[in-house]
Amino acid sequence: MAEKLKIIPLGGLNEIGKNMTAYEYGGEIIVVDCGMAFPGDDMYGIDLIIPDVSYLIKNRARIRGLFITHGHEDHVGAIPYVLKQLNMPIYCTRFTAGLIKLKLEEHGLVKSTKLITVEPGKSVRAGKFTVEFIHVNHSIADSVAFAIHTHMGTIVHTGDFKIDSTPIDGEVIDLARFGELGKEGVLALLADSTNVERPGFTPSEKTVGATFKRQFQGCEDRIIVTTFASNVHRIQQVLDAAAAFGRKVAVTGRSMENIMKVSTELGYMKVPKNTLVDINRIKGLPKNKQVIVTTGSQGEEMSALYRMAFSQHKQVEIGAGDKVIISASAIPGNEVTVSRVINELFRKGVKVVYDRADMLHVSGHACQEELKIIHALTKPRFFIPLHGEQRMLQIHSQLAQDMGMDRNHIAIADNGSVIEITAKTIKLGGTVPSGEVYVDGSGVGDVGAVVMRDRKRLAEDGMVVVVLPISAHDGNLLSEPEIITRGFIYVKESGDLMKELQSVARDAAENVSRKRGRDDGELKGSVKSAVSSYLFKTTKRNPMVIPVVTRL
Amino acid sequence: MAEKLKIIPLGGLNEIGKNMTAYEYGGEIIVVDCGMAFPGDDMYGIDLIIPDVSYLIKNRARIRGLFITHGHEDHVGAIPYVLKQLNMPIYCTRFTAGLIKLKLEEHGLVKSTKLITVEPGKSVRAGKFTVEFIHVNHSIADSVAFAIHTHMGTIVHTGDFKIDSTPIDGEVIDLARFGELGKEGVLALLADSTNVERPGFTPSEKTVGATFKRQFQGCEDRIIVTTFASNVHRIQQVLDAAAAFGRKVAVTGRSMENIMKVSTELGYMKVPKNTLVDINRIKGLPKNKQVIVTTGSQGEEMSALYRMAFSQHKQVEIGAGDKVIISASAIPGNEVTVSRVINELFRKGVKVVYDRADMLHVSGHACQEELKIIHALTKPRFFIPLHGEQRMLQIHSQLAQDMGMDRNHIAIADNGSVIEITAKTIKLGGTVPSGEVYVDGSGVGDVGAVVMRDRKRLAEDGMVVVVLPISAHDGNLLSEPEIITRGFIYVKESGDLMKELQSVARDAAENVSRKRGRDDGELKGSVKSAVSSYLFKTTKRNPMVIPVVTRL
Repeated sequence: MAEKLKIIPLGGLNEIGKNMTAYEYGGEIIVVDCGMAFPGDDMYGIDLIIPDVSYLIKNRARIRGLFITHGHEDHVGAIPYVLKQLNMPIYCTRFTAGLIKLKLEEHGLVKSTKLITVEPGKSVRAGKFTVEFIHVNHSIADSVAFAIHTHMGTIVHTGDFKIDSTPIDGEVIDLARFGELGKEGVLALLADSTNVERPGFTPSEKTVGATFKRQFQGCEDRIIVTTFASNVHRIQQVLDAAAAFGRKVAVTGRSMENIMKVSTELGYMKVPKNTLVDINRIKGLPKNKQVIVTTGSQGEEMSALYRMAFSQHKQVEIGAGDKVIISASAIPGNEVTVSRVINELFRKGVKVVYDRADMLHVSGHACQEELKIIHALTKPRFFIPLHGEQRMLQIHSQLAQDMGMDRNHIAIADNGSVIEITAKTIKLGGTVPSGEVYVDGSGVGDVGAVVMRDRKRLAEDGMVVVVLPISAHDGNLLSEPEIITRGFIYVKESGDLMKELQSVARDAAENVSRKRGRDDGELKGSVKSAVSSYLFKTTKRNPMVIPVVTRL
Repeated sequence: MAEKLKIIPLGGLNEIGKNMTAYEYGGEIIVVDCGMAFPGDDMYGIDLIIPDVSYLIKNRARIRGLFITHGHEDHVGAIPYVLKQLNMPIYCTRFTAGLIKLKLEEHGLVKSTKLITVEPGKSVRAGKFTVEFIHVNHSIADSVAFAIHTHMGTIVHTGDFKIDSTPIDGEVIDLARFGELGKEGVLALLADSTNVERPGFTPSEKTVGATFKRQFQGCEDRIIVTTFASNVHRIQQVLDAAAAFGRKVAVTGRSMENIMKVSTELGYMKVPKNTLVDINRIKGLPKNKQVIVTTGSQGEEMSALYRMAFSQHKQVEIGAGDKVIISASAIPGNEVTVSRVINELFRKGVKVVYDRADMLHVSGHACQEELKIIHALTKPRFFIPLHGEQRMLQIHSQLAQDMGMDRNHIAIADNGSVIEITAKTIKLGGTVPSGEVYVDGSGVGDVGAVVMRDRKRLAEDGMVVVVLPISAHDGNLLSEPEIITRGFIYVKESGDLMKELQSVARDAAENVSRKRGRDDGELKGSVKSAVSSYLFKTTKRNPMVIPVVTRL
C-alpha cells in the first residue's frame, strides 16, 4: 500500500472562524491552530463556539503537539476549552505565546500547559513531523506559516497572511523561503481563502498610518481611535502619529489594555517616550493634546467606545470637540451594531471618520494577486483551499486551476473530511466527528440542538404554562387549571384570553381523565394540543405550551 | 400670533423604514406615506413594525387624506393596519394604487377604502391643502414627490428619488417643475437622506441593462435572475435581454408574480411577444433558452431562490449549467442570509454572479450631487432632512449648510417631534406620541416592552419552572417540588442538577412557610431567588425562573 498522509480539517471550512486542522502521518498526529467562532444571530444565548475535538480525544496518545500560526481568536480562542479535555504541548512564536498565556492564566491552566516558543525561520521536531516556522505578514504581529516536513514530502500551511512590502515591523513575508520550498518540492499547499473574492493586492498597513497623519494634521479636537485590539502595528501607528503631533495617548477597554501590556513587555510595540498616560490623567490636558485608543470597533455592546457613545463610560465623556476615527471595517453581521454606535456619536455632536474610501483600514488577508504569488512560488502538487465559506473555497480552487493546476489535484473539503494524500493522489476518504460545540456560561457542550430549538421557539412566541392539579385518588381536576405566560402577550390586555384558556385546558383534561384514567402522557398531550390550537386560531401565534401535572 | 404650519414626522427619522409624516395647517391635517419597518434581530418573533398613530386617531376628525409617494413597503406597508383604526381617503398614482389594492384585498378593506388615483403633474385639493404630484425617478415605477401648497407657502416633500437621465420608462424626474417652484418660492424642503453619505451621482437604471446583456451574450447556461420584486424597470430589462437573445422567461415567488401581474395589467411593464411562459412549462426548453426571474435577493428564508438553493423548490431544480445573477445589494442586516444562499448555490455547482463591481445593481436614492441639484432648484427657506439614521440627517444638514443655508433654518427632528414653521422661523415645539408598534401574528400592539424583554431573556438562557404544591390547610409542601426546564440545559446530562434544584427549592419554600404562613408573593420570591442564585453559581447562566404555587 502506498504511503499516506491524512489531513483532517476540524474547523474553518465552510465558515469564517474556529480554524483547526489535524495532520496525521506514520501513526502520529499534529494539530495546527485551535480557534473559536462567534455565534450567529440565531444561536441564542451562546457565548462562543469551539470545534468538536472528539476525534483528537479518541487519539490522544498519538498527538505530538499543537502548532499555532498567530494570536487571533479564530486561531487560539478554543485553546483553554480544548486543553481542559486534551493536554498537548503548544508551539508558537513569542508574541502569540504572550497572548495565549493571558488565556491560560484566566482559566488556571498555566502550570499544566507546556508552551514552547519558536523563532520564525527555525524548525521543531514533533514525532515524525518537522515543523518549520516561516514569517508572514498579517494584521497581528509575529504571524507564521508552517512548512510541515515528513518523509513523504512537505506541506505548506499558510495560516492567515498577506504580502506587505512596507510592513510596520520592517519584516516582509519570507517569500524567498516559499520559493526555496517550491524548488525543493511541495507536496501540498493549504492556503487562506478569506479575500480570494477580491482582485488585486491588499494595501500595505503603512497606508493607514498616512491616513492617521492627515487626520491629526491641524486637528484641534480630541482624537479617539478605535481598532481591533490585536492589531499591534495599527496601534503603533497611532502612537507614532500622536508623538509626531505632540499628543499624549491613553488606552481604554480591557482587551486593548491587555494586549498593549503584552506587546510592550515583549518588545513588539515601541512606545515613544512620554507618550502614554493613564486614562484618568489625560483629562487635564487640552483637547488637542489628547488621543484615546479604545476597543469597540465592531460596536460591541459594553465595549469602551459603546459606553462612551451611550454616556456610560466612567472616565471619558464625549461630545462636540471630539473626533472618533473608526479604523476597522465591520465584520459581516456587525454592520447594524457599528451603525448604531456611529449614529449615537453623531447625535452627541462628535465628528466621526468612518468612510471606507479614506483608507482608514486595510485587510490582513491576501487578495487574488498575492495568492497567485504564493501558488507560483510553492508550485504545490496538491492544493486544499482553507479558511473560507464555500464560495471562497471554490473561487480559490478556480484560481489554482487558472494557474494550470489539474482539478483532480485539488480537494475542496468540509470540516471533518479526511483528506488522504499519497505521492500521486489526493482524495476525500471518509469523515470523523466534527461540528460546533457551544460554550454557554460555564458549560461546554451541554447546550445542543434540542436546547437551541427550544430557545428559538421561546424567543419567537414565548410560552404558556398550564398547571393541572389532579387528584391522585380519582384522576379528576382538583381545581381550575392555572395559566402562566411569559413573552407571549401583555397579560393585562388579555384577561379574557386567560379565562378562555383555562376553560379550554379544563375541557381537554376532563375528556382525557374520563377516558384514560391516570395516563399523564395522554393528559399532557391532549391539553397541549387543545391549548396550542386555540392559541393559534385566536392569535396566529405558536407559543411553547408546557402542561404541568401535579398529582396530589 | 404669526400663522403657523406644523410638520410632525411619525416615522422615518433616526431609522430606515416606516416613513410617515403629518402636515397640520389651519386646523386640518394631511398625512404623507404610511410605511412599515422590518424588525431587528433583537425583536424576537415580531413580523413587522408600524408607526404609532395615536396622535392621528385622536385628531381623526381633522384629517383630510393620506398621500402616498410610491409603492415600496417602507411607504405603504402599514396602510392596512392603520386603516383598520383610522379610515382616510388615499391619494396616489396609478401603479401605487395597484399595489395598495393588493394589500387592501388581503385584509378585506377594499370596500371600506376610498382610493383615488392622481396623474403626476396634477394637483388635488384636500381641505386647506393643495397637493401637487411631481414625477421623480426611483427604483419603483410611478414615484412622485409632493408640492404641498398652503396659504402660508409651499412645502416640497421629495419622497424617495434619484435623478435618472436615461430612465427605462423614458420619463426623467421633472426637474423643471422643481425649478419653477423654487422661483415661485419654497417655504420648506423635506428630502430623502438615504444616500447622503455617498459622493457623486447614482448611476442610471439603464447601466444594469447593459450588464444583463453582457451576461446573456454567449451564455449557454440557464439564467436565473433575482431582484426586488417591486423594481419593475429592472424586470423589464431582464425581459428585454431575454427577448434579444431568444430566451423565454418564467417567474417564481409570490410577490414577484403579484407585481408582474399588476404592472403588466396597468401597462407599466411591456412583455415582449411570446416571451413569458409558465414556470411548469419552461423546463421543456433547452437551458440556453430559459430565464427564470425569482424573489429571494435578500436571502429570505423560504423565498423562491432560497428554496432553489436548498433543494426545496417544487418546479426548479438547480445545479451545474445554471447561472444565478443577483441583481440587488444586501440591505444592512441581511449580509449573512444573502451569503448563506450564495454559498449553497456554489456548493451545487451553480455559477453565481454577485460582485458589486460589475454594476449588477444601482440604488434608487439620490447621492450628494443629486441632492445638491434639488436644493439648488427649490431654494427652500427651511430644510428638514427626511428618511435616514441620525448620521445621515446630520450629513444632509451639513450639505445644505455647505450650499449656504443658515443652520437656524434647518430642523433635525425625531419621530414625534412637532416642527413649527412660521414665515420667518422654524423650531421644534413639543412632541406627540410616537414609536414602534409591533405586529405579531394577528396581534397589533399587544406585544410591548415587557413581552420583548421576556422573550430576550428566554432566548438567552431558557427557563426553569418550579412547581410547589402547597397545602391550603397548613401551608406545608405536599410533595417534592417539580422542576421543568426548556432551553436551559439538556436534561439527560443534568439529572444531578435537577435533584439539587429540587432540594434548593424545597429548603427555600420551607423556610418561608415556617416564617410567614401563606404569603405566596414571599414564597415565590424566596424560591425564585434561591434557585436563580444556585443556577448562576453552578452554571454561570441566568434562566428565567418561574415558581408556580398550587394550593390544594
